[in-house]
Amino acid sequence: MLPEAQRDSLEVVLVSPRNPLNIGAAARAMANFGLRRLSVVAPYEPTWREARSAVGSLALLDNAVESSTLAEAIAAATLVVGTGTLSRRKPEQAVVPLPELAPLVSQELAHGGRVALVFGSEKHGLTREDLSYCHLLVEIPTDPQQPSMNLGQAVAVCLYEIAGRAVSAPESPPATPAPSITSAATSGRLDLLAGVIEEAMRAAGYSPRAMQPANRHDLRLLLRRLSLSEHDNRRILGIFRRILWRLNQGHDSDGKSG
Amino acid sequence: MLPEAQRDSLEVVLVSPRNPLNIGAAARAMANFGLRRLSVVAPYEPTWREARSAVGSLALLDNAVESSTLAEAIAAATLVVGTGTLSRRKPEQAVVPLPELAPLVSQELAHGGRVALVFGSEKHGLTREDLSYCHLLVEIPTDPQQPSMNLGQAVAVCLYEIAGRAVSAPESPPATPAPSITSAATSGRLDLLAGVIEEAMRAAGYSPRAMQPANRHDLRLLLRRLSLSEHDNRRILGIFRRILWRLNQGHDSDGKSG
Repeated sequence: MLPEAQRDSLEVVLVSPRNPLNIGAAARAMANFGLRRLSVVAPYEPTWREARSAVGSLALLDNAVESSTLAEAIAAATLVVGTGTLSRRKPEQAVVPLPELAPLVSQELAHGGRVALVFGSEKHGLTREDLSYCHLLVEIPTDPQQPSMNLGQAVAVCLYEIAGRAVSAPESPPATPAPSITSAATSGRLDLLAGVIEEAMRAAGYSPRAMQPANRHDLRLLLRRLSLSEHDNRRILGIFRRILWRLNQGHDSDGKSG
Repeated sequence: MLPEAQRDSLEVVLVSPRNPLNIGAAARAMANFGLRRLSVVAPYEPTWREARSAVGSLALLDNAVESSTLAEAIAAATLVVGTGTLSRRKPEQAVVPLPELAPLVSQELAHGGRVALVFGSEKHGLTREDLSYCHLLVEIPTDPQQPSMNLGQAVAVCLYEIAGRAVSAPESPPATPAPSITSAATSGRLDLLAGVIEEAMRAAGYSPRAMQPANRHDLRLLLRRLSLSEHDNRRILGIFRRILWRLNQGHDSDGKSG
């Protein structure tokens, strides 16, 4: 999440939204990523009323600022970023792929600037006039077969990138992807387990005596491939000890009855 | 976007979705990021009908696969990733922040594996049982004040990260075709192995009947932690089948002699 001091400096602007559910979804995504400042430009009034009165409507909808023009809504912004599908028109300013937007936004915020992220209406997107207020345009990488995203989802994806991901992603990813829950089993503990498994295999008549050295070798390799934690090692050992005990008990009773 | 050859190997699974709009939104996000394979587990039937008959409903909804259980839906997957808010429970497997998920998914796909991304119902998320089928859990970095995302937006953000961003971002390293010895065991094959091990544990009297559901749960998680290849899966299955056969034989001879 963004540092507390920067949260009021990143604003979402919806231009002429038509669907109350989309306004609600945009507000929810903002709350998910710790943002608070929503501006709505020239909303269709019934839509706007419905969005604000919806069950579960968020406080930030009540505090949203309504403007009649985009120019007014973004007057205080130092960096205005337009969004939308760009295939229909030749852009007149720089187009930045969304994955590269975060550093530009953080830099602006770090320098005390204010950033506005502007979304057009569901049907037409931003007009050429709207776009002319933007310092740059951002493009979400989508499939050319189905490039146009739902408004609420587009807001979520953009905010994830610039307010969620950017701030939480470590600079250099850790070498090991999955954190191990407990410490790894030592080689000696693996050998102990291998011994018990081998005994159980022998008691079960798993393979002819001539194959046993080869099986031992394979088992040793297999247990190391599994990268067992000591926790799991202990658990598996318990299962095989019980099995071995039972197998030998079976033998004994065979012996007695034979 | 993902290479054409990998697009059918990344599947979205919705467990018991309740809101038709969310199903439609999930499908739309899939189309935006070039995916096609949607599975729906135990949907609420009126919801499912409504989603499929909605105006503007996508072809991939018609081709969606319906299953009655999660195990069935993910049987062919080699990497099962669970999603959701994790604050309510202590996770039993590795949790990966979403920004770090993409390399794991691309690696799996590059090796010919199949990845399932599993989303729970809007109200309750994934159950403890559902989660036990997951190799790892992914966490979207959200504000602790409002951590829970809308289903359609969560799907969009996850797919943006692993199917849109990862493939288009210039700074992301290319998926290196590391030499994997063998392919990963599918979820269905792990379940088969778990069943045989469980039988052997029962035959060996490993635990009282009351403990068996808990042991089954732990075993399912354990087998997924081990990241078994199909080669190893087959080998371990062979060992346990032999052990089980011998344990049952012991029983029979006990019976005969008793």
